[in-house]
Amino acid sequence: MIDKQDLQTLCGGRPVAIVGAGLVGAGWAIVFARAGLNVKMFDANAEITRKAVPLIETQLEGLRRHGLIDEDPAVVLARITPVATLAEAVDGVAYVQESVLERVDVKRQLMEELDALLAPDAIVGSSTSGIPGSAFALGLAISPRVLIVHPVNPPYLVPVVELVPSPEASARTATFADALMRAVGQTVVHVRKEVEGFVLNRLQAVLLREAWALVQDGVASCEDVDKTIRDGLGWRWSFMGPFETIDLNAPGGVADYAVRLGALYQRIARAGSHEAPWDAELIGHVESQRREHLSQADLESRRAWRDERLMEFAAARRAQAPGH
Amino acid sequence: MIDKQDLQTLCGGRPVAIVGAGLVGAGWAIVFARAGLNVKMFDANAEITRKAVPLIETQLEGLRRHGLIDEDPAVVLARITPVATLAEAVDGVAYVQESVLERVDVKRQLMEELDALLAPDAIVGSSTSGIPGSAFALGLAISPRVLIVHPVNPPYLVPVVELVPSPEASARTATFADALMRAVGQTVVHVRKEVEGFVLNRLQAVLLREAWALVQDGVASCEDVDKTIRDGLGWRWSFMGPFETIDLNAPGGVADYAVRLGALYQRIARAGSHEAPWDAELIGHVESQRREHLSQADLESRRAWRDERLMEFAAARRAQAPGH
Repeated sequence: MIDKQDLQTLCGGRPVAIVGAGLVGAGWAIVFARAGLNVKMFDANAEITRKAVPLIETQLEGLRRHGLIDEDPAVVLARITPVATLAEAVDGVAYVQESVLERVDVKRQLMEELDALLAPDAIVGSSTSGIPGSAFALGLAISPRVLIVHPVNPPYLVPVVELVPSPEASARTATFADALMRAVGQTVVHVRKEVEGFVLNRLQAVLLREAWALVQDGVASCEDVDKTIRDGLGWRWSFMGPFETIDLNAPGGVADYAVRLGALYQRIARAGSHEAPWDAELIGHVESQRREHLSQADLESRRAWRDERLMEFAAARRAQAPGH
Repeated sequence: MIDKQDLQTLCGGRPVAIVGAGLVGAGWAIVFARAGLNVKMFDANAEITRKAVPLIETQLEGLRRHGLIDEDPAVVLARITPVATLAEAVDGVAYVQESVLERVDVKRQLMEELDALLAPDAIVGSSTSGIPGSAFALGLAISPRVLIVHPVNPPYLVPVVELVPSPEASARTATFADALMRAVGQTVVHVRKEVEGFVLNRLQAVLLREAWALVQDGVASCEDVDKTIRDGLGWRWSFMGPFETIDLNAPGGVADYAVRLGALYQRIARAGSHEAPWDAELIGHVESQRREHLSQADLESRRAWRDERLMEFAAARRAQAPGH
């Protein structure tokens, strides 16, 4: 639940800045503006900023249609101001969410620019899905105030964010980011070490590896692997994590489950020995299976279908919220 | 969509048998009876058969409450007849779903008994989640007509079933089981090799291994791992599998995605080097974290909560069915 007054207090009544206004940045602008914050939006490429505005309008309309915003879309949109320079974007803000290109040199250069521009108490969150703060955010005056705030796309629908402080990030930075994210309605996961892929992409990586290996070994088709998730495992995982799932699946809870089934699961997981299942031949094989189910020409309309399903899912979750 | 007339034609108007009337067997009885088939239900332990009936009644009531059955629960229940002997259970049936104890010797003995009792065209599906048909169903007259039909619990809510033929199973057996399962409303996954864990538990196993490893390495708490799935990855996986997910996540589809991100994901997945994360100390650590969130005394009521969520999920899916 978003408490707009708490949020204003937390930010001292100041706006936030979006730096990098592509798909991810535009999604973040919606998150903050929906929560009642004023947002300044900047991209080094003015064309990208220009395109972000109608994209945000379309998304806000979808949110309204599914009952996911309480205000008129125009009211939310009016809180978002595209600006022409980085200096203007970050002037007087409490928080900067950077979503620039996923390259160490680009992120490092931005940190140096922010170092020169930011108020001494402003915090910076980076949307990177894979680059640890240690690779681009150390050794500057600003370093204690930078951490990774990694969203799932689109962040205004899927609530989880991973907070990953670098070794130089201060405790106050993590505390602020945690409070800010919760205040705008996100679910916070604290990643306590800078491991590659953080938590979310590590979990996705192992599942994908097994999925590809099952196809490579001729155990199942792509479509059958997909069915196993969407008509099977994915049902519970949409409202319970893996630990809660197994905690409820043995009479005595998770320890009971581990004693009963741990060795079996471990043996299964260890048996996967594919060092490189993403090879060219296999990719071609998977690609052709997918194109039988969905032609290249239909990818775009299927993405719209997916976004509709996510909106419906978010609306259903919202209706259930007290139970969670 | 269940077509009751097709189903009667498929089974030649004959009933089906449930052998083993525990939680899994009782769940199967609901699947078949809901679809309009007459069901004979047997367990070697008469006490278990006796307990199954009120359990089925309660579940049917839940299904009615969520709009998941079209008939009066009493009408569905009346199609299920508990019987006292195996011979009576399988007399004149088109199909037997066995859900007896998960032990090779118990399953083998049942196959030998069925071999002597069954009509020469009746098919046998085994609910085993882990024992391949080769371990208990070879070398009998009945062997060509036995295959694994592995459900997720409860099968009347979560639709996926894995079909795993042994090397001796005939093509007709797989064709019949596929048609029967689809006719009663399940989603069929064809597992083409007898690998341990089939497809579903292999996918679950690798995710669980990484989940335990993340806690063991101090990267995240159990609760934060759970949040990453239920408020993140699980959203898409509840209506799309992993291949469709990545197919839609790169402009050119799955091949494009693989070229962009395959190496990164493979490196992440390979980095997990935990040979035995389910050790006693870690189990104790996870157990204590879980008990902070949910006391031992509350496990049972949380299971009821989970079952309600699954019913709601199934009802939402049913409402959306034309889109899928």
